[in-house]
Amino acid sequence: MSEALRVGIAGLGTVGASVVGVLAGKARELTRQCGREIVVAAVSARDRGRDRGVDLSGAVWFDDPVELATRGDIDVFVELIGGAEGAARACVEAALHAGRHVVTANKALLARHGLALAAIAEKNGVLLNYEAAVAGGIPVIKTMREALAGNTVSRVFGILNGTCNYILTRMEAEGLSFEECLADAQRLGYAEADPTFDIEGYDTAHKLAILTSLAFGSRIAPDDIYLEGISNITQADIRAASELGYRIKLLGVAQRTDDGIEQRVHPTMVPTASVIAQVNGVTNAVAIETDIVGELLLSGPGAGGNATASAVIGDIADIAKSRPGFQHGPVFGRPAGELAPYERAPMRTHEGGYFIRLTVHDRLGVFAAIAGRMAENRISLESIVQHADGTNGTSEKTVILVTHETTEAAVRKAVDGITEDGHLTTKPQVIRIERPA
Amino acid sequence: MSEALRVGIAGLGTVGASVVGVLAGKARELTRQCGREIVVAAVSARDRGRDRGVDLSGAVWFDDPVELATRGDIDVFVELIGGAEGAARACVEAALHAGRHVVTANKALLARHGLALAAIAEKNGVLLNYEAAVAGGIPVIKTMREALAGNTVSRVFGILNGTCNYILTRMEAEGLSFEECLADAQRLGYAEADPTFDIEGYDTAHKLAILTSLAFGSRIAPDDIYLEGISNITQADIRAASELGYRIKLLGVAQRTDDGIEQRVHPTMVPTASVIAQVNGVTNAVAIETDIVGELLLSGPGAGGNATASAVIGDIADIAKSRPGFQHGPVFGRPAGELAPYERAPMRTHEGGYFIRLTVHDRLGVFAAIAGRMAENRISLESIVQHADGTNGTSEKTVILVTHETTEAAVRKAVDGITEDGHLTTKPQVIRIERPA
Repeated sequence: MSEALRVGIAGLGTVGASVVGVLAGKARELTRQCGREIVVAAVSARDRGRDRGVDLSGAVWFDDPVELATRGDIDVFVELIGGAEGAARACVEAALHAGRHVVTANKALLARHGLALAAIAEKNGVLLNYEAAVAGGIPVIKTMREALAGNTVSRVFGILNGTCNYILTRMEAEGLSFEECLADAQRLGYAEADPTFDIEGYDTAHKLAILTSLAFGSRIAPDDIYLEGISNITQADIRAASELGYRIKLLGVAQRTDDGIEQRVHPTMVPTASVIAQVNGVTNAVAIETDIVGELLLSGPGAGGNATASAVIGDIADIAKSRPGFQHGPVFGRPAGELAPYERAPMRTHEGGYFIRLTVHDRLGVFAAIAGRMAENRISLESIVQHADGTNGTSEKTVILVTHETTEAAVRKAVDGITEDGHLTTKPQVIRIERPA
Repeated sequence: MSEALRVGIAGLGTVGASVVGVLAGKARELTRQCGREIVVAAVSARDRGRDRGVDLSGAVWFDDPVELATRGDIDVFVELIGGAEGAARACVEAALHAGRHVVTANKALLARHGLALAAIAEKNGVLLNYEAAVAGGIPVIKTMREALAGNTVSRVFGILNGTCNYILTRMEAEGLSFEECLADAQRLGYAEADPTFDIEGYDTAHKLAILTSLAFGSRIAPDDIYLEGISNITQADIRAASELGYRIKLLGVAQRTDDGIEQRVHPTMVPTASVIAQVNGVTNAVAIETDIVGELLLSGPGAGGNATASAVIGDIADIAKSRPGFQHGPVFGRPAGELAPYERAPMRTHEGGYFIRLTVHDRLGVFAAIAGRMAENRISLESIVQHADGTNGTSEKTVILVTHETTEAAVRKAVDGITEDGHLTTKPQVIRIERPA
């Protein structure tokens, strides 16, 4: 049997403690699977005194994670600190420069600095594994980076944020408002005290940026993402979606088009009968569409200490199974130096179906005016639903339009026209429709 | 750049031709991903003259696949002949003995001889990759063998046969009989002229046997599988399932119990709202439940030339990315010599819910007798539905029982009792219920 693989872990929060616990608890089985022992040789965290419920007595303690990364007697550096800058970035860079393999769960770091880190890793012939950074325990990085070799991806999309999916699932199942569900998510620890990062789509965007690079061989471009969160989704939208055979999910979508690559995060209508529509609660899912395999869908837990630890340990085990002198494939599927510049497709060229919910004055000619604006922009309609709101005897009506395939530019022009016509009583709601292949 | 990886392919049917075509068409991209060229250096098939729509001019032709496996100047031998014995077995054994890496899509060969082949591969330090052997283009082998390192699997189950899923999907969607749907599947090329292998569950069983070994670290035991096909499923079952919130799927299930490991293939009721219930048509899906990650579900195309070729090429690319002297993990996750003997849990100890459909004489006391037999065997009922059949004024009734968790032994005893009581007009139908975690 080969020598033990010596692991150094920086960051001992929920995930870090779970990684230490599983490596100890499953030591025998992992040794059998990897052909060598995996030992936690060194650890680093902010508070040495805190009881984390795991035995750290065999590991050398470093107060400074950079010191652990460079001076610790380790083969693999596991970064579980988090954040795109600061200690996380410093110690990952240091570890790669020092010729250590790195395993990280840090989506922000990869979205911001992945390209530079990949270049260092590839130059030094070490691995940079990051399965846990996207969709937690779902092996989507392994699938895209390894299993789909030779496949040309046309679209990748997914439910990448458990908090949003939990909120949308409860809104639909229980008829609760966004605010009520968010409060519950916070109570249950699914959402932070400041939930902006989750509910406005930033978290999804970080993960999407990584998937886009893997899918299309392009440089990571986390700022070139169209972003819309779920805080404007109302019960009226959820009910109308349901009535029309759709369910609302916050999706991250990356798609190759004639105009470049679209990256977008927004609430999306998916057909109720599709597999992804059944992915409920905090569960995540990723669909990948390619020319050779067709469509794959992977679903599973997107967060949580153990699920994330599972991905981290899978990454460590891959390194344990490799032998000195071996180099696996490039970090983002293609060598960092050969990743193409990201060519952003403008959002106005996006093509797809649209759900448009309008609250209008109940007066003669309104519907004809709306229909006229649609026709004027060459938007043909798949369905039209009109409800009398009937609340407090107000003279308002709700008009719901579902369009056939059209463009974002046309929809925006039509909706702007309707707004200018003065028929609307509240802001129009526009939700894009995404159909699985 | 390293030297090219030289591939020899035996078997040039749909999958083989697709592999050759994709390797040529995606040559530049694959070179970028793998850091070296992949070339088809040698091929072997039965009919040299046949036009397969791909350029074979660069490859040396061998009439004998064993000769290709041993004498060809190749690094990787790709077996796409099929069948557990004969040429396929001979050439894979020969290739492994000759120190060639092997990639195969041959589930029957692995189910029968996987253990012996793994031992040869591990002894000679070569890889035996077989992603395409189970669930076609879905990366389930990679997920179980690599991504889930350290996870202890409690259950793995899936829709592993596209033919059966196509038939069951159409039966439900269109109200057609089993026979009509089978005939259509044959017309469309989804089913063989002799469909026994698919519809009686043998194909699913081969794939399940491989998954069981990966899941539980046990020796492959393809003959120790409880087997029930879908040919007895009727519209009455499908309709009753739907009414009760279930859908019928042919599942392969492997599960650890106190009595050993259950391996069973049978029509199964799954809750309509579950993700796996939405996996329709020829699509396959595999769910994996473990102690660390929780539940993963992977779905995608389970068959077809391109989808299978995608998995074969992923396996080849993994080898191309590795370097001489490198050895990846063991073939079945654990070293062949350390796989535990398979301990079969007897089917009578299976615990779960049951759907029982009885056609009974419409006379006094029948229902009381049925209820009595259930109570006598300590089976408690979740729901009871009774329909008057009303066909041709016959005095028959349909009674449908859905049980709470009970045992196979209890259900068999109860149903035998009911049969002996003489109330049934036709054979009772018993379908097991499987609930995703």
